[in-house]
Amino acid sequence: MAGLLVILDGLGGRPTDFGGATCLERAAHPNLDELAAQGALGLMDPIAPGIRPGSDTAHLSIFGYDPLKVYTGRGAFEVLGIGMEVRGGDICFRANFATVEERNGQLIVLDRRAGRLEEGKLLEEAVNSVSLRDFGVEMFFRASTEHRGALVLRGEGLSAAVSDTDPHEAGVPVAEARPLEDTEAARRTAQILNAFTRRAYAVLRDHPVNKKRVAEGKLPGNAILLRGAAVMPHLVPVTEIYGIRAACIAGGALYKGVARLAGMEVLSVPGATGDLKTDLRAKAQAALEALRSFDLVFVHIKGTDNAGHDGDAEAKRKFIERVDREFFGTILADLPKGLHLCVSGDHTTPPAVREHTADPVPALFWGPAVRPDRVRTFTERAAGEGGLGRFSGRLLPQLLGYCDFGSKFGA
Amino acid sequence: MAGLLVILDGLGGRPTDFGGATCLERAAHPNLDELAAQGALGLMDPIAPGIRPGSDTAHLSIFGYDPLKVYTGRGAFEVLGIGMEVRGGDICFRANFATVEERNGQLIVLDRRAGRLEEGKLLEEAVNSVSLRDFGVEMFFRASTEHRGALVLRGEGLSAAVSDTDPHEAGVPVAEARPLEDTEAARRTAQILNAFTRRAYAVLRDHPVNKKRVAEGKLPGNAILLRGAAVMPHLVPVTEIYGIRAACIAGGALYKGVARLAGMEVLSVPGATGDLKTDLRAKAQAALEALRSFDLVFVHIKGTDNAGHDGDAEAKRKFIERVDREFFGTILADLPKGLHLCVSGDHTTPPAVREHTADPVPALFWGPAVRPDRVRTFTERAAGEGGLGRFSGRLLPQLLGYCDFGSKFGA
Repeated sequence: MAGLLVILDGLGGRPTDFGGATCLERAAHPNLDELAAQGALGLMDPIAPGIRPGSDTAHLSIFGYDPLKVYTGRGAFEVLGIGMEVRGGDICFRANFATVEERNGQLIVLDRRAGRLEEGKLLEEAVNSVSLRDFGVEMFFRASTEHRGALVLRGEGLSAAVSDTDPHEAGVPVAEARPLEDTEAARRTAQILNAFTRRAYAVLRDHPVNKKRVAEGKLPGNAILLRGAAVMPHLVPVTEIYGIRAACIAGGALYKGVARLAGMEVLSVPGATGDLKTDLRAKAQAALEALRSFDLVFVHIKGTDNAGHDGDAEAKRKFIERVDREFFGTILADLPKGLHLCVSGDHTTPPAVREHTADPVPALFWGPAVRPDRVRTFTERAAGEGGLGRFSGRLLPQLLGYCDFGSKFGA
Repeated sequence: MAGLLVILDGLGGRPTDFGGATCLERAAHPNLDELAAQGALGLMDPIAPGIRPGSDTAHLSIFGYDPLKVYTGRGAFEVLGIGMEVRGGDICFRANFATVEERNGQLIVLDRRAGRLEEGKLLEEAVNSVSLRDFGVEMFFRASTEHRGALVLRGEGLSAAVSDTDPHEAGVPVAEARPLEDTEAARRTAQILNAFTRRAYAVLRDHPVNKKRVAEGKLPGNAILLRGAAVMPHLVPVTEIYGIRAACIAGGALYKGVARLAGMEVLSVPGATGDLKTDLRAKAQAALEALRSFDLVFVHIKGTDNAGHDGDAEAKRKFIERVDREFFGTILADLPKGLHLCVSGDHTTPPAVREHTADPVPALFWGPAVRPDRVRTFTERAAGEGGLGRFSGRLLPQLLGYCDFGSKFGA
């Protein structure tokens, strides 16, 4: 027996989205309705009733972790979101390219965003050439959009209890990182960050990219400001908890990152773009293929959330129809024997709101072990009448429970 | 007003048990249906959605304790399971009779199971004659099946942070217990266990039972190996939390033990055997009798779980019918005024799986304070449509809530 967990990001909606109906209610989804008729529905609060989830915290909760315990802050999870491979215990920072000027040995910040430079990727290698090995520490830097990036420190005796080197204003020196608790690890980490500030400036100051920008009258990206130190949590991998092999199929880096942290193998699927244009048939084929060798396959589909953030109810409705036809149509045409399936969202993104809301999300379980209810369609309202009632997160433990994975707690 | 909590062990089932239906769905249970029609149903996850419960952890959760906080491990709860009377703070061990040979002052293990000897009960008194009073410690030993048993240490300044004396292999000396943390209690407990090893050998070496075994060419049970130290948790008794008198009627030792730990008085009922042959009318009569003097009566009925573990769907179906007729028929024929009733299971044991599964369990509440729902039958699917929704554990607090026991939390 194997389990397939399909998360349609931002799936849920509100009556205000479509003149009295949600996108899911207005969309035709015969395949999902067929699964609903044979399976059972419930309403899931991704974290707890009334909590507006982020995609990161929601996925932790859906996988069975308690985000109130393991979520260490946006800093750590943004690092996952830009696709860096991190490990539990790594110290993560949000980073900015900035423009500084040396005055009396001090680095004065002229622009915290280096004129929103676009050449971050071209400067990435130089930043990564900074060595902190004399401290026994590895450092990884990744540029993302515009002036943004992230930095990871890896090594023994590090702490996230350090203040930012980002002074959060211009016209003042780059801030000295200070320990925020009285520990050797915090003191040492602050010292390492201050060394990093100087060493990064040394490699960026005369970098050809910056020379070119200055020649063009633009602000150089000659310093890195760090903020929001957070430790990457040590999660006990679901593969270990349940003694299974697990795979992830996703377009977005954040989902791949959380899945990797949870012990899943991230599969590469050409055409899985993490947006409305994603190749849903390719993802379904990849899932069917993966189900031959993995006990659990997690598929993340992002487009529903994008349309919600865009405030485009019609795009969300159409995308749901495409998911039903292209993804679930492909799965149902070649259904593996003994498969258990869970379909849900990670939160509600109503086009009428254009943001994540706290509303509960419909969840569908299907497979031989699932006791069917009377609900025959996959919508928010139908889920409210479903036989599985209302629960918080934990879709993955429930799905694996139906598959009889995992050991007893107790005797 | 009084409350009657009836747990049918392993009650829940799956559609795969009986060709599309569960045993509960296939069984005729007019009395339970009558209670369902008058009362209200819900779906209970014994611990949390997706967790496969043991009977020990499930009962803790049903009684209102958080097993993730109070469950100290199998060692402690096995001691309850073989019927030893323990208290919070006791240090519990799983024990084996073993065969050892003295060589140069060392006890070398020849067989960790003493040839799976059957005379454990005959050696029990000798082991209990070992005194640890010079350490200010009381010791209790109980033999169970074959070479197995359990040992309990009671006294001040003891710790469960000690290594096993069981070397887990033959041909090597009995292991020296070592402290696993740097505390006086751990050091002292290790010292006590090592004294116990020697003293137990002294009383078992020349025991007539062992002499007879040796004469018959069998391996003597001349040593006791200990493993899996665990402290019995201190539970605040429900009798204290709610200011009530509570009684337990059960056949199985584990359920009596957990009930005693929760402050319940364990009543002896002849014919309550904890298996499929148990005298259900006698248990119902005893419950009715107890309800005259106790505020809460907890009745545990084990046969449903036994049939589930046996993979015998027909036996489970028939046993449910017998429970309905003989237990609930007797209760309904002589219903105490103002009684509130809760009927549920501690987990799902589908005959198709032969083990506990993570699926939620139907729960029924009945009595003057319970708001009736529209559900008119007691099945898993009906419970999914019940008016009480889905919740985790805590049957006993809810039942006592309907009975208006307990003080406000807050003002």
